[in-house]
Amino acid sequence: MDAPALRLKLLIAYDGRPFRGWQSQATKDAVQDFLEAAFAKLVGHRVPVIGSGRTDTGVHAQAQVAHADVPPQRLPLAKWAAALNAHLPPEIRVLRATRTAPGFHAQFHATGKIYTYRVWNAPALHPLEIGRAWFVPGPLDLARLKACSQMFVGTHDFAGFAANRRRPEPDTVRTIGSVRITRRGPLIVLRFEGSGFLYRMVRLLTGTLVRCAQHRIETSFIRDLLAAPGRKKTHYCAPAEGLYLTRVLYARTTERR
Amino acid sequence: MDAPALRLKLLIAYDGRPFRGWQSQATKDAVQDFLEAAFAKLVGHRVPVIGSGRTDTGVHAQAQVAHADVPPQRLPLAKWAAALNAHLPPEIRVLRATRTAPGFHAQFHATGKIYTYRVWNAPALHPLEIGRAWFVPGPLDLARLKACSQMFVGTHDFAGFAANRRRPEPDTVRTIGSVRITRRGPLIVLRFEGSGFLYRMVRLLTGTLVRCAQHRIETSFIRDLLAAPGRKKTHYCAPAEGLYLTRVLYARTTERR
Repeated sequence: MDAPALRLKLLIAYDGRPFRGWQSQATKDAVQDFLEAAFAKLVGHRVPVIGSGRTDTGVHAQAQVAHADVPPQRLPLAKWAAALNAHLPPEIRVLRATRTAPGFHAQFHATGKIYTYRVWNAPALHPLEIGRAWFVPGPLDLARLKACSQMFVGTHDFAGFAANRRRPEPDTVRTIGSVRITRRGPLIVLRFEGSGFLYRMVRLLTGTLVRCAQHRIETSFIRDLLAAPGRKKTHYCAPAEGLYLTRVLYARTTERR
Repeated sequence: MDAPALRLKLLIAYDGRPFRGWQSQATKDAVQDFLEAAFAKLVGHRVPVIGSGRTDTGVHAQAQVAHADVPPQRLPLAKWAAALNAHLPPEIRVLRATRTAPGFHAQFHATGKIYTYRVWNAPALHPLEIGRAWFVPGPLDLARLKACSQMFVGTHDFAGFAANRRRPEPDTVRTIGSVRITRRGPLIVLRFEGSGFLYRMVRLLTGTLVRCAQHRIETSFIRDLLAAPGRKKTHYCAPAEGLYLTRVLYARTTERR
């Protein structure tokens, strides 16, 4: 009888710019494609890599989580991260590969996520922020940004903050635990922690908040979208380049072997 | 009689990667070349842009300082930064353009400089640190790094930390006011403040310090280079991509109109 597979839990960082998002593409230029290709080189057969969820083209990850099953004797556990990195482009790095329970599932067991969104609010975009922040010149009302952001906290039907897709998500209720906004000089960082987020939701929340902080829409615009979900949608979408998947949360027990 | 020229003091940030350093090149691909081309477009004739000093290819600047003389009525003072940026590649940004004294000189009046050097010390280089930090995997003795760095503080003949050049600098005595080293996770930041630095000196100091923190050279190696200047040179040069010109210091009086 074959020894049972070793399930690896991967902590992955990537620069979103060179890739067509997380999710495998026919063109094989998604982050998942590169990871699966690296595994195939190391074990000699296809290894599905299951991520905690998708990120769009251009969205960065500081700590995406994925799982993959590998033959238990192929490599010492401590060698997996370096071995994978040797077959990955430098814009994708496996920061850590650990053994996890055979039943652990990177997507289904995720209990929440933290996303951060970086806004550069100054007359000029700093050269070292190109592709890493949304450049928003002109006045931004930080107090209003903070106040409006708190309207999202709690359990709401976020249908008004869901992107238009061919197959709309059936359940658009999500719980946001906190939205924290800090400013340091020209850099404004929005940190969203929630049970889960709809497709493009963080970018739609951010785009709408910034529009509100520019006094170009009323606070009631947000209130109405939350109060009457599905009647209207926001179309103020912040660009991908400012968004970072910062952390995926799991209940402790799911990872135990 | 012509109105006297307006002398602008520019605060400039750049990503060092796309350019062949600060100093004008025959190939016209240095930061200074792009700035002079932008001025020429705005005023219709050549405007020399004088920087506080050179930076090498790949070295970044958070706040390079330069001066340039422009016709006083050409543009309102508040418009210069944006007008220049409109003619510059995005990897170079004029963060501020202010009026300064006609006698102010960005190079000669600089009383000191602050450079920072970023070292990424982890098994893998984070994708968002590519081109922005020196990747040094493996053990680094932070206490030793800090202790050795303090040997540089004070006034020394740094001939042992000067790059080999066709025309060696005649005076290799410099004063380093402080070297501060901080670590946050995998990121180690070295901050050098001094009256001035020789060509490649910060990279040679950093390269030698890191070698020492790896226990690959003795502390006495540094002590000997400082004690008997000119007899030997270090050849441990840290790469350009981790280096940032962070601030140029001026005495207050030099900038007064």
